[in-house]
Amino acid sequence: MSDRIARLRELLEDPFLVTSETNVRYLTGFESSNAALFVEPGRARLFTDFRYIDAARAVEGVEAVQTARDTVGWLAANLSGRIAFEAHILPVTFVDRLGSGGIELVRTTGLVERLRARKDEAELAAIRAACRITDRMFERLTTEVQFVGRRERDVSWDITRLYHEEGAEHPAFEAIVGSGATGSGPHARAGDKVIEAGELVVIDTGCTVDGYSSDCTRTLATGELSGEMRDAYETVKRAQQAGLDAIRAGVTGVQADAAARDVIEASPFAGTFGHGLGHGLGLEVHEAPRLSTESSDTLEPGNVVTVEPGVYLSGRFGVRIEDDVCVTDGGIENLTGFTKELVVVS
Amino acid sequence: MSDRIARLRELLEDPFLVTSETNVRYLTGFESSNAALFVEPGRARLFTDFRYIDAARAVEGVEAVQTARDTVGWLAANLSGRIAFEAHILPVTFVDRLGSGGIELVRTTGLVERLRARKDEAELAAIRAACRITDRMFERLTTEVQFVGRRERDVSWDITRLYHEEGAEHPAFEAIVGSGATGSGPHARAGDKVIEAGELVVIDTGCTVDGYSSDCTRTLATGELSGEMRDAYETVKRAQQAGLDAIRAGVTGVQADAAARDVIEASPFAGTFGHGLGHGLGLEVHEAPRLSTESSDTLEPGNVVTVEPGVYLSGRFGVRIEDDVCVTDGGIENLTGFTKELVVVS
Repeated sequence: MSDRIARLRELLEDPFLVTSETNVRYLTGFESSNAALFVEPGRARLFTDFRYIDAARAVEGVEAVQTARDTVGWLAANLSGRIAFEAHILPVTFVDRLGSGGIELVRTTGLVERLRARKDEAELAAIRAACRITDRMFERLTTEVQFVGRRERDVSWDITRLYHEEGAEHPAFEAIVGSGATGSGPHARAGDKVIEAGELVVIDTGCTVDGYSSDCTRTLATGELSGEMRDAYETVKRAQQAGLDAIRAGVTGVQADAAARDVIEASPFAGTFGHGLGHGLGLEVHEAPRLSTESSDTLEPGNVVTVEPGVYLSGRFGVRIEDDVCVTDGGIENLTGFTKELVVVS
Repeated sequence: MSDRIARLRELLEDPFLVTSETNVRYLTGFESSNAALFVEPGRARLFTDFRYIDAARAVEGVEAVQTARDTVGWLAANLSGRIAFEAHILPVTFVDRLGSGGIELVRTTGLVERLRARKDEAELAAIRAACRITDRMFERLTTEVQFVGRRERDVSWDITRLYHEEGAEHPAFEAIVGSGATGSGPHARAGDKVIEAGELVVIDTGCTVDGYSSDCTRTLATGELSGEMRDAYETVKRAQQAGLDAIRAGVTGVQADAAARDVIEASPFAGTFGHGLGHGLGLEVHEAPRLSTESSDTLEPGNVVTVEPGVYLSGRFGVRIEDDVCVTDGGIENLTGFTKELVVVS
């Protein structure tokens, strides 16, 4: 991990206090709910409390320092001088407390997130492994699991179970199982609704390997669909392919989003794709860069992003198809292998 | 939920912007990863983006308003005047953006958390239900599950499975299964270590019902223990009882902590109880009030707190025993039922 701290140092003008748990983990491998990393030119100190100090002492390339449980208060009393901090992470009251001890605080935004957006080989290996497990989970889900007549939450549990059996650390998030009208909410939860025949079922799920996540959506059919449902499915499938075709280094998040969005806007489903095309994926399920109408990002080699257009007919049904791709020097590597042809389950 | 907003209004001097996801959920029942609640004297507006707007419109007692995906930017452009905000939640850059549109921002800290610390009957019912499921999980774990010869992570999966079978929504957090030396880290994770005979195994686990969590620790024995291990167990058991005996309305978090800590400090294990006695429990697994040497809280009826002293011998073993209790008018209600006698598993 110490090469990551070295790369961070190249971006710094002042000693830098990292307080984001995820950023601390990225830079050191150290996981905890209470830690701060202080990076100076020749030195990096990892602060944490009693509960994690043994684990912190095992981290290479940093000095572990035990603080009070109130780490911010401890830092205010023990650090001094000019210190840069993560202004997009640290709440106002914590900044006030740090500053009260006389530290001269300098705002930064997204420095470590910028490094995290370009995955290295170890990170790509973990994401690839998570994506392969998700592929196998979908293969088994669509061949071994009963949908019709069972509650959405029962299918969600089957996903959790299959991930365990296939060797994932854990699900990356609680799987969305949105059948019929439930699927028309992009972030619907798996609930007590019983899945019926002739519905579309949006399955949005991922798993975690070495802390890195996959994030994949497929929309399945429970038997014969209406013509409108089939049209919606084909429209989203074409839009998703258009998004994949557009993604390469140098393309902006707005351009990638537009490539997929234009397909839907030119269809009978215009106006029903209400969210962005995708987001970066790594230690967090949502991270930089963003692909959306509001994005200010430009794609670079090493970015891993989701590509997930959707169509949502409020109160009726939804369709979403989502792959994870890595931006390479020459184009993209699609990390998701499960078929995007419409799969019918029973 | 609207009575919760009414109680919040009694604490307010200015229109109040709630941005903590958990606080928004507490006040409205609305769950999302992007929402803000704006409470004015005669009006409450719930802001969220496209992904959640249908769910927001179903919330009673508030007006649902759809924002851009960048909700903070949208609020900066659409709100004005003097507005109180959650300074312990909102990162500095978000505050800067809100203020850039001319809003006069007023800092507050912990207003909703203060309400959340006193549970109402609906909340207590959910926590009681979660605790009962955790009791049943422990009964089955200690009678049906093999420990010796299996990895900690395999036992952790059994806990997840048992919670599902007993009707929990999901585990409240990834269960800690700390056998032997693993258990000497208070927040150790269940890993690849194989559990051996003659070890202590710290099991720290909880589950969620209607969004509310239980949080319970038992330390089990895998066969015959050394005299030191048995002494450590009995010391922690006595300390935990001393903590329970001390807890009632009007007692401070420092006093409750000291009652348990004194037992350990007077034993051969002095100096090995490195964390606080407990914490509030509700929509979050760690919330107000705190029981610790650093606490500034005083217990009130309606508080639900954990009582969890421990002894940790670095690199050797750990013991922790944790109940969840509700502070009542007359004393406490212990919500945890599973035995604290040393249980031997195979």
